Amino acid sequence: MSFDYKIADISLHEAGRHQIRLAEHEMPGLMALREEYAESQPLAGARIAGSLHMTVQTAVLIETLTALGAEVRWASCNIFSTQDEAAAAVVVGPQGTPENPQGVPVFAWKNETLEEYWWTASQIFAWPGADEDPSKGANMILDDGGDATLLVHKGVEFEAAGGVPSAQEDDPEEYRIILETLRKSLSENPQRWTGVAENLRGVTEETTTGVNRLYQLARQDALLFPAINVNDSVTKSKFDNKYGIRHSLPDGIMRATDVLIGGKVAVVCGYGDVGKGAAEALRGQGARVIVTEIDPINALQAAMDGYQVAKLDDVIEQGHIFITTTGGKDIISAEQMSRMRDKAIVGNVGHFDNEIDMAGLAATEGIQKIEIKPQVHEWVFPAGHSIIVLSEGRLLNLGNATGHPSFVMSSSFANQTIAQIELFAKSWKSGYTGEDAYASDVYTLPKVLDEKVARLHLQALGAELSELTKDQADYLGVDVAGPYKPDHYRY
Amino acid sequence: MSFDYKIADISLHEAGRHQIRLAEHEMPGLMALREEYAESQPLAGARIAGSLHMTVQTAVLIETLTALGAEVRWASCNIFSTQDEAAAAVVVGPQGTPENPQGVPVFAWKNETLEEYWWTASQIFAWPGADEDPSKGANMILDDGGDATLLVHKGVEFEAAGGVPSAQEDDPEEYRIILETLRKSLSENPQRWTGVAENLRGVTEETTTGVNRLYQLARQDALLFPAINVNDSVTKSKFDNKYGIRHSLPDGIMRATDVLIGGKVAVVCGYGDVGKGAAEALRGQGARVIVTEIDPINALQAAMDGYQVAKLDDVIEQGHIFITTTGGKDIISAEQMSRMRDKAIVGNVGHFDNEIDMAGLAATEGIQKIEIKPQVHEWVFPAGHSIIVLSEGRLLNLGNATGHPSFVMSSSFANQTIAQIELFAKSWKSGYTGEDAYASDVYTLPKVLDEKVARLHLQALGAELSELTKDQADYLGVDVAGPYKPDHYRY
Amino acid sequence: MSFDYKIADISLHEAGRHQIRLAEHEMPGLMALREEYAESQPLAGARIAGSLHMTVQTAVLIETLTALGAEVRWASCNIFSTQDEAAAAVVVGPQGTPENPQGVPVFAWKNETLEEYWWTASQIFAWPGADEDPSKGANMILDDGGDATLLVHKGVEFEAAGGVPSAQEDDPEEYRIILETLRKSLSENPQRWTGVAENLRGVTEETTTGVNRLYQLARQDALLFPAINVNDSVTKSKFDNKYGIRHSLPDGIMRATDVLIGGKVAVVCGYGDVGKGAAEALRGQGARVIVTEIDPINALQAAMDGYQVAKLDDVIEQGHIFITTTGGKDIISAEQMSRMRDKAIVGNVGHFDNEIDMAGLAATEGIQKIEIKPQVHEWVFPAGHSIIVLSEGRLLNLGNATGHPSFVMSSSFANQTIAQIELFAKSWKSGYTGEDAYASDVYTLPKVLDEKVARLHLQALGAELSELTKDQADYLGVDVAGPYKPDHYRY
Amino acid sequence: MSFDYKIADISLHEAGRHQIRLAEHEMPGLMALREEYAESQPLAGARIAGSLHMTVQTAVLIETLTALGAEVRWASCNIFSTQDEAAAAVVVGPQGTPENPQGVPVFAWKNETLEEYWWTASQIFAWPGADEDPSKGANMILDDGGDATLLVHKGVEFEAAGGVPSAQEDDPEEYRIILETLRKSLSENPQRWTGVAENLRGVTEETTTGVNRLYQLARQDALLFPAINVNDSVTKSKFDNKYGIRHSLPDGIMRATDVLIGGKVAVVCGYGDVGKGAAEALRGQGARVIVTEIDPINALQAAMDGYQVAKLDDVIEQGHIFITTTGGKDIISAEQMSRMRDKAIVGNVGHFDNEIDMAGLAATEGIQKIEIKPQVHEWVFPAGHSIIVLSEGRLLNLGNATGHPSFVMSSSFANQTIAQIELFAKSWKSGYTGEDAYASDVYTLPKVLDEKVARLHLQALGAELSELTKDQADYLGVDVAGPYKPDHYRY
Repeated sequence: MSFDYKIADISLHEAGRHQIRLAEHEMPGLMALREEYAESQPLAGARIAGSLHMTVQTAVLIETLTALGAEVRWASCNIFSTQDEAAAAVVVGPQGTPENPQGVPVFAWKNETLEEYWWTASQIFAWPGADEDPSKGANMILDDGGDATLLVHKGVEFEAAGGVPSAQEDDPEEYRIILETLRKSLSENPQRWTGVAENLRGVTEETTTGVNRLYQLARQDALLFPAINVNDSVTKSKFDNKYGIRHSLPDGIMRATDVLIGGKVAVVCGYGDVGKGAAEALRGQGARVIVTEIDPINALQAAMDGYQVAKLDDVIEQGHIFITTTGGKDIISAEQMSRMRDKAIVGNVGHFDNEIDMAGLAATEGIQKIEIKPQVHEWVFPAGHSIIVLSEGRLLNLGNATGHPSFVMSSSFANQTIAQIELFAKSWKSGYTGEDAYASDVYTLPKVLDEKVARLHLQALGAELSELTKDQADYLGVDVAGPYKPDHYRY
Repeated sequence: MSFDYKIADISLHEAGRHQIRLAEHEMPGLMALREEYAESQPLAGARIAGSLHMTVQTAVLIETLTALGAEVRWASCNIFSTQDEAAAAVVVGPQGTPENPQGVPVFAWKNETLEEYWWTASQIFAWPGADEDPSKGANMILDDGGDATLLVHKGVEFEAAGGVPSAQEDDPEEYRIILETLRKSLSENPQRWTGVAENLRGVTEETTTGVNRLYQLARQDALLFPAINVNDSVTKSKFDNKYGIRHSLPDGIMRATDVLIGGKVAVVCGYGDVGKGAAEALRGQGARVIVTEIDPINALQAAMDGYQVAKLDDVIEQGHIFITTTGGKDIISAEQMSRMRDKAIVGNVGHFDNEIDMAGLAATEGIQKIEIKPQVHEWVFPAGHSIIVLSEGRLLNLGNATGHPSFVMSSSFANQTIAQIELFAKSWKSGYTGEDAYASDVYTLPKVLDEKVARLHLQALGAELSELTKDQADYLGVDVAGPYKPDHYRY
Repeated sequence: MSFDYKIADISLHEAGRHQIRLAEHEMPGLMALREEYAESQPLAGARIAGSLHMTVQTAVLIETLTALGAEVRWASCNIFSTQDEAAAAVVVGPQGTPENPQGVPVFAWKNETLEEYWWTASQIFAWPGADEDPSKGANMILDDGGDATLLVHKGVEFEAAGGVPSAQEDDPEEYRIILETLRKSLSENPQRWTGVAENLRGVTEETTTGVNRLYQLARQDALLFPAINVNDSVTKSKFDNKYGIRHSLPDGIMRATDVLIGGKVAVVCGYGDVGKGAAEALRGQGARVIVTEIDPINALQAAMDGYQVAKLDDVIEQGHIFITTTGGKDIISAEQMSRMRDKAIVGNVGHFDNEIDMAGLAATEGIQKIEIKPQVHEWVFPAGHSIIVLSEGRLLNLGNATGHPSFVMSSSFANQTIAQIELFAKSWKSGYTGEDAYASDVYTLPKVLDEKVARLHLQALGAELSELTKDQADYLGVDVAGPYKPDHYRY
Repeated sequence: MSFDYKIADISLHEAGRHQIRLAEHEMPGLMALREEYAESQPLAGARIAGSLHMTVQTAVLIETLTALGAEVRWASCNIFSTQDEAAAAVVVGPQGTPENPQGVPVFAWKNETLEEYWWTASQIFAWPGADEDPSKGANMILDDGGDATLLVHKGVEFEAAGGVPSAQEDDPEEYRIILETLRKSLSENPQRWTGVAENLRGVTEETTTGVNRLYQLARQDALLFPAINVNDSVTKSKFDNKYGIRHSLPDGIMRATDVLIGGKVAVVCGYGDVGKGAAEALRGQGARVIVTEIDPINALQAAMDGYQVAKLDDVIEQGHIFITTTGGKDIISAEQMSRMRDKAIVGNVGHFDNEIDMAGLAATEGIQKIEIKPQVHEWVFPAGHSIIVLSEGRLLNLGNATGHPSFVMSSSFANQTIAQIELFAKSWKSGYTGEDAYASDVYTLPKVLDEKVARLHLQALGAELSELTKDQADYLGVDVAGPYKPDHYRY
């Protein structure tokens, strides 16, 4: 075998390859980039450590990155989200065989333990020879949720401190495992992460949560390299978050439960982009949607869009379906779950599983947990009634369905690819000294690149774009080729 | 083993039992009927030959029928639609074990051949001792699509003619198999079906297609027993057809293809109840929906609902998704499929698989068929482009998803149960001689029973019904308890 | 002046003529009938007494009837609904002048008193010479709400009884006026209405309310001539009621109040066709819609369409807008109005003004009524808060807007025209003796004529109808030219 | 009479006062500000020159400004948009009489000429004594579209140049009038505008168009005082533009034409906030909506929302209704109008009347213009067909309806009021020297003030806001009291 990897079963590669071929058709943005950059190979020399759900769509992203010249190592950013056949196909590669894989090293399989998860996260930095010579290691991170970036920053921090602290009593279980992972690392090589960080030119980050962490680091002047906030490209946040969830939320609920959504009362916690997509999908299926919000602007939007805006406590007995979309925590408490209707469905499409108080639920005295099928559990309260929790409170659209569909991921991933190209070339850590060099701060992509991503997807939908005349463009004070809007424009 | 049956794997019964328990919660209509009739046992003495998709929901129906006193034998009405764990659970019964099944004889498994299918159809009439003494056989049919009813009528016809005719050259393959099945039957017992028919008090029929056959028989004075058209209860046709498809169509497309529906052009052939539900679901997912129709009234409804109404030929190059909902035939031709966009998705939620010309597609010179996964096939035209056909042109909501969800089936099946009670008691063949006896004709349920079915489902949705005062009812000229509308009212 | 009439101001005729010309463009059904029957003149010899809102659209209907050969006299069926310029234009006629009107005698103006209203109703039967020779009088009625038909039936009844009874204490004010009108008539000619009834071949009735009256008469064997129920043509009830209200309800609310509908809580009482259109319109404007219903089937439809279904009392404090759509009475009581939010808007698009208890409201102690503008009144409760009542509780879409738009009226009125043609030719009172002669009962139009009306409207919308092949039609058991559906089909 | 003003008819003041009282109920944001600042009087000393549509809602704004201590002079920013009764009521004031007006000087009436319009614009700067002592003049501008700001800047420019240039041949008619207005001003007082500008502390601007002008000035370092861009407050741009148009567009079309929107093909040019509201409103009325766009991101949004995206030329024959929403120019050409369907409706809700080429239309050889009613014209092409143009191509929601409803204006105007308070206190020209002083640049309001505006409107809708716990807020890294989102968040 030509390289190390760890996946579920490499023999699944053919099934994966079929799916990749179909997904490519639904990812016109990535395919257009492959064509545009076939010759110039802007990622030649890039060694990308990728941490993002190892799905079929990600496979098309990975193969786009390599088509542009990059070398890649990959892990999933979620213990449940890997599609094993996609992992297998990426490892084998389009030209390889299971015996002679010619693809990309992947460290991901469906249903990892947390220990395994953090091991895979460290493996994407374990480039051959890098421990000895950091310049042979990763020089780019492509991150989703910020775990890869976190590992590097914590590693550097503890290496500087000369050791890994003990976990505190109230630290979450997962943080103990991170500490353990790093403790083992420092014992092997006490300067590993310092070397890794040195060599990194930058990170491109996919999600709100990861982006928030980056802005925190930047505010604390602790960011070790430049970052591009891909999440806030319009063609990411307003597409993936909204239109992706619109598709994958009902998909997940339907696959998990086969329960009719029509006629039911669905409570959507949060009315950000994800919540907007969730509410639209549920209404589109004939549910009556109630929204909870803490932000008065979003709350007013929900009201103006015709939804009831209520406090969760006031509608806890009414809902048949409860969906969290917030990125916050403790959105639904165990006590609230105990007051829901019999067989109410509870699921999360926000970010972490702490949006729903799963720990509190499990700690409820006398509660019984029955597995209906994988990722679908009935929690029976002592009083006899029960609720159905999807994907253990983790992202149900990934756990119970297959995540965002290819087309929206094409938009997100075209942003990722363009961001990798930008940062690989123009990070100050690339030695680039132009005025537009990226410092160790957090950036969004220039609007004209955002518009480019949109443009790449219109034709596939049969949408015909109009063109400004020079005269009209002058009247508006914009260029015929864009960008067309001021930066503060909200779409 | 206490009785004969043929299912895939009886050991699946526990999984099925779990699902049945959850489905019961979503079928408030059936559960209310169990409660209402627990004591009176109105189906005591009924022996029901059932032919209807052997799903989890049907399991709840079957166990409702037995809870009301009936004996039951069951087959599926579609070769793909059986959920094997549901069949196993019904065979075993709530109190039985695989070794000592105490449920209902079922003859159904996923993926039957057509020969097997027609064998199972004959088995629901093969009651122990019935061949010798027809009065021990089935006295009721519960039918979906009319195959069980067809078998009896053809059997009687051929037995009267003294033999089964040869198939004609242009007879469909399936008809040859029916003839073969009956030829074998006549060779075993030349008066079997005559005896079966004699003993039958009536049939309750689920679908448009089956109902159309019944009306044809009635017009030809060839109907051998009374029939209740369950399909045209408002709480069936306007609920199951419309709201069921609204759920199960996107479910099927999503599970089959994972392709984003949003932004795509979806062509819905037909704007009857099924088409209305399909169009609403696809629009609810952000697709642009184009409707084709032959009925000017339905076409005008589609236009007034904001859909483009076009001829299929005029939009064949535009569509990304094509769905037939008509109950007709040759709605999409092979030639039209060859002109579709690359990777266009083609599926049927109407009735038979001849809505899409699958035979013509298979006969296209140089075409190649690739199985992406079960029930999802890519057909590659010689020119290189391909289309994705779901469920081989059969009902995709059954083949690629799990059919209508429990809640809508509760409404349909509450109608079925009430219709079985009506007909078992009041068929002229039951010896009933009241003025309201059912003759050998086709009937719909009285409106007040239709309203009863609706009433049984409101509470579960949290819907609060208002009540007329006596004074208001008098003003409207109706009874406080209903029925509230004239028979011609269209809802 | 060549004939008697009574309208507001004949000089408005030019403005009316402009509007009629524009309305003709929006009434493709009527214009197509003018073309189709230009030569055959199927209404030659018909003398039609018309009682229907005297709007611009009705003007196009009247001129269609005359274009087909009829003579016509017209009154409005509502004291508020006349558009004075339309009345003027119809009186003058396309070729006439105010000095030499060549149109149709009209007795209608905006804001009639009830006494005037019933006088106009009697005038449409006052054909020159008819009092002496009833055969010179009206031979057809075109009715909306049944007032013209009521007048004839009551007249005949009292003439047979030899006198008009006194009003009872609890008779509504309006009934006293009817009695007074007839008392005067009997004193002039004690056999007038008997003669009128004798000469009438039939009535075509527009609305649910009028149709209900006709069915009551038929059940009592008291119907004096055949009736065609135009209301229940699909292209009437499912178009005019639903799509007309969808347009004219928000139109009326907006013109009356300029209050933002978006974000508000709108309570729609009733979910029949009118209620469905109302709910859709209000949701389409971003309101949160709550439905009240007494029919469990309609209630279930509302729930499945995603609306909250509640009892009015439970949501009386929540609503910003309350709309009655029922055709019933006492839907909103004065006491309930007193509990509404300050400045809640209350209106009716059902039938009579007794849906909202206006009498009770006016009788509330200490209440104050302020006219904001014509047809918009603020009722200030002694406690200081107030509600806004539209059109005094009468039809707000007529009183505050201009009623259904031309296009839906084209559909309704094409049914009216076709029904007049049918009945004029084939009433038993026409001397017609064919098998399909209309007896003194209530009929709906044959489905194929209903389909014809739809067909006449498709092209104007750019909708392209598909056509069945002979083979497909045979498969479905229908004729290529229709009708396509069984009579019980609900659309 | 206590002050000079020019309005249509002061006797209309009572009608206006009624409407203002009702509007106040629908403007909870402004009423809450009156309460909050009743005591502190933050605008005491402010002399505001206001240029904004003189409607009933603006009357509530004006009286809010005076309730906070300001003195005000007002003109409309559009020649058609004044509601005369609102102007009258504002002039008279709540306590005044026509003989002794105690309100605010207003210079606005419905249907001004362009000459009159620019005269009114100059009157809002003509404070008593200001010509002699500029410090007695306006110290704040409240602007909509930027005309008041333009007048000041052009005045200063020409005064510095020592004279007003001649109009160029291709200058628009309106520009000639501006030049003429200033020429007259310079002849009266050659330093008037220089004095005015000196004394101004800043401008708060309502619309995209005005804001664009401000950013241009700022880029050229030509902005004479600070500006707050109210347009881009979320609670302005995403509410007024979107939800306001959703209401007032169908309102305008319905009042103008009474044409059924349902079933029609509506072409919406532009899919910004205004276009989104327009498309939603038309779809909500059952129209089939086609969108044209030049920005690929907005185009992709339109496609994902289920609309057809096309070039105008490709659908010019299909549309029944064409609406421009762009803020650009020459969106619909005269030649395109000549190819539309007979009686197609054409209207603009963008900004200026040059979105539709009205000049080109008028110049079409042989064209005939018929006034159907005020603001509704039929343009008959020589070939015989015609189109209906609303409001002469100016804003139809103002010309044919009454503009945005009070509730959305409450949101916009609460932003205006807060911006006036901010700028009056903290402009560098106020002598304020804090770190957060506003320089002569363009600013948007701090997000927490934007959230405040939203908060002020929730209760009136019955929306219940949830509250973060301290723990949840810390987790998100925000303050419990907000702001909740980063500045780049798009809502």
